[in-house]
Amino acid sequence: MRCMNTHVILLSGGSGKRLWPLSNDIRSKQFLSLLDDGEGGLESMLQRVYRQLRTQFPEERVVLATGAAQKEQIVAQLGVAVDIVCEPARRDTFPAIALSSTFLADICKASPDDVVLVLPVDVYADQGYFSVVKQMRDAVADDAAELVLMGIAPTTPSDRFGYMVPSAKKGKGYPIIERFVEKPSEDVARKLISDGALWNGGVFGFRLGYLMDIVDTQIGKFSYGELLDTYATVGKISFDYAVVERASSIAMVRYEGMWRDLGTWETLSEEIGSGGIGGQTRFQTENTIVVNELDVPVVAIGTKDLIIAASADGILVSDRTRSGSLKPLVDTIGDTPRFIQYSWGSCRVVDRKLVHGKVEQETRILDIGASRELVSICTDGEEKTLICLEGELVVTGEDGVFPIKIGGSIRQSAGKEYRLSCTGAARALEVIWFIY
Amino acid sequence: MRCMNTHVILLSGGSGKRLWPLSNDIRSKQFLSLLDDGEGGLESMLQRVYRQLRTQFPEERVVLATGAAQKEQIVAQLGVAVDIVCEPARRDTFPAIALSSTFLADICKASPDDVVLVLPVDVYADQGYFSVVKQMRDAVADDAAELVLMGIAPTTPSDRFGYMVPSAKKGKGYPIIERFVEKPSEDVARKLISDGALWNGGVFGFRLGYLMDIVDTQIGKFSYGELLDTYATVGKISFDYAVVERASSIAMVRYEGMWRDLGTWETLSEEIGSGGIGGQTRFQTENTIVVNELDVPVVAIGTKDLIIAASADGILVSDRTRSGSLKPLVDTIGDTPRFIQYSWGSCRVVDRKLVHGKVEQETRILDIGASRELVSICTDGEEKTLICLEGELVVTGEDGVFPIKIGGSIRQSAGKEYRLSCTGAARALEVIWFIY
Repeated sequence: MRCMNTHVILLSGGSGKRLWPLSNDIRSKQFLSLLDDGEGGLESMLQRVYRQLRTQFPEERVVLATGAAQKEQIVAQLGVAVDIVCEPARRDTFPAIALSSTFLADICKASPDDVVLVLPVDVYADQGYFSVVKQMRDAVADDAAELVLMGIAPTTPSDRFGYMVPSAKKGKGYPIIERFVEKPSEDVARKLISDGALWNGGVFGFRLGYLMDIVDTQIGKFSYGELLDTYATVGKISFDYAVVERASSIAMVRYEGMWRDLGTWETLSEEIGSGGIGGQTRFQTENTIVVNELDVPVVAIGTKDLIIAASADGILVSDRTRSGSLKPLVDTIGDTPRFIQYSWGSCRVVDRKLVHGKVEQETRILDIGASRELVSICTDGEEKTLICLEGELVVTGEDGVFPIKIGGSIRQSAGKEYRLSCTGAARALEVIWFIY
Repeated sequence: MRCMNTHVILLSGGSGKRLWPLSNDIRSKQFLSLLDDGEGGLESMLQRVYRQLRTQFPEERVVLATGAAQKEQIVAQLGVAVDIVCEPARRDTFPAIALSSTFLADICKASPDDVVLVLPVDVYADQGYFSVVKQMRDAVADDAAELVLMGIAPTTPSDRFGYMVPSAKKGKGYPIIERFVEKPSEDVARKLISDGALWNGGVFGFRLGYLMDIVDTQIGKFSYGELLDTYATVGKISFDYAVVERASSIAMVRYEGMWRDLGTWETLSEEIGSGGIGGQTRFQTENTIVVNELDVPVVAIGTKDLIIAASADGILVSDRTRSGSLKPLVDTIGDTPRFIQYSWGSCRVVDRKLVHGKVEQETRILDIGASRELVSICTDGEEKTLICLEGELVVTGEDGVFPIKIGGSIRQSAGKEYRLSCTGAARALEVIWFIY
């Protein structure tokens, strides 16, 4: 075995409204703190995957490949212990993995012999899943094949997944994949399963040098900085098409445990305890899940088989089995998100005044963590007033440095930029006027 | 027929949470703008009753008998065209009618011969109801009896109402009531109905002098001002016990039309059109009523037989036939109302920060009507900051008069009192810190 390190790339993408009103264009499902963390608290899918991953890979480098919209939320939830590779534009999984691999090779000076493991961040699985990821590392290190994939033991002949059919051939004891079948019909899927096929879990293992050769050929030989600059022009192509389908040998490691997509209210609500989340009073309810992010209560009486979810963005009341219809319904709601998590804390819109469909003024509450800072920019067509509600804020601008205490306020006009910082935690109220 | 005027006393009392989250300790059911006004808009029960009443009594004096908590809302909904007699304490219907009658006699110098008609304000009936009220006026004017009551034709043998049994005797053609039966069992009610009994609708007609004699005897001979001062010590007794049961002759006018109590979600939701009220998107819903006062949408999917109601105070999701369980559930919610209507406009709490169950700071949006003014008092243990969001406010305090424009702010410390006024409509944001 050649001497090598291991690096993990977590792919954090996606956005959408399948979990509206909790998820929105900025807040993806992996950031929602809805899962039991086993210690009486709640954690997000991202936090859960990171925690589970760290039990198997305590010291290894973890790179989060994501877009600008998610960067702040990742820092807020994981802290600064991870490297974030921020895609300057939205492409597909191959460019994202290529960029992160270039980051490893060029910035981290990782060796071409090093093992790279790529995982989706929105996976909901047992700890055993991560033992399998570790076996995949060993398979790559053993040179079982050019590429190692996770095969997930199918539970139903689903037409929503890719299937991998293993051959009789083995590479260092690991089954070698003969062929892939993408989203077959249920009948074909049933046949595939009886032939021993597994679902493609989207987890990849390879040596860094192997992938960098492919990147050099398919995208070009770039430094990390150069690739960032040219990233927006890279073709949109998935890792499956660009790499997996062209690999000469692919080994597979099998995972048998729990593996679920918590991307819809129907599946997510099964993982939320019957007590629900947030302020609620229930009376004679049956199979009703309440998730309430507001600071006023939800009262449910005599309801059956319902999902009730409330956030600053809106209220959902849905039959548990019919929440799949949600996305097209809320896609037409043009409202911009009212709750945003940032690296420095969070911002919540508490009032939005619309005139002829346009936001004329907006009031926001900023909760700022201890020792954090943020930059408040007032662009053309905006004016702001900021009041300190709690703690003490230090405002730094071109006109000087001045502290504002509880009840104190500053006005900010178009073109002005202020840096707000605080030593203890602070809370501020911001009113913005938009002039069209 | 003696020459006389007619005066109408509308009793506006009650408060409670049977229509939570829309109704609360301050906002009673009669103030909720949920009813179709017949012109594409919405009106409250109060506005509806007042509108219906005015078609029969266009010029007559209308006095609203109410408590301090409702005074502002009545002015906001009816304007200044009505006289408001504000009970300094909560007693019962006899003291309330006595106070309003004293107001008529003492302040308005109404004649003892004048006809007084007393109606509850939370009645939901056809226009025909008000024709019957007019017939009651004629019956009083004809001296059919000392007292004239409205008898409502029963639709079910309900055990929730008082029954009036007419005798064969007539007074000027109107049936004279023989006896009253208060809330009989269903069996007794069925027998009463077959004997021709009617429900007591709580509508009374009498000559002012008749009632003032009773007031002089039972409460004492007071001027309006004196009665206001002594009001809190007046015994709690209903008009039925104090007057009706002791009357020597009572005539009845019969009403056959629609008459409903809209005091619960179950009954109210029948009067709300299937389109619901407020922002909502419904998909494959059945028999589901959505009433949404928030500026974010409610999305309902596949729901059946539900009432969904959302306001700044909370969210209700209830089976339509089971909302009767609501009151005890929400009585335990200690939160103070977040939306209050005033004579000058409205106040809406948009953020409330609690520490150990106590409100530490609160942010409110004040919508102030054109040419209105309000007094902002900062009591001990409070501090306030006010920002002008829209329009222009004139602030008058002991330290002078100063205008504040959009973005401008003032701070108010304990003990200070400011008068805020505006010529055009204005909007302000108020932050209050409570120091315990």
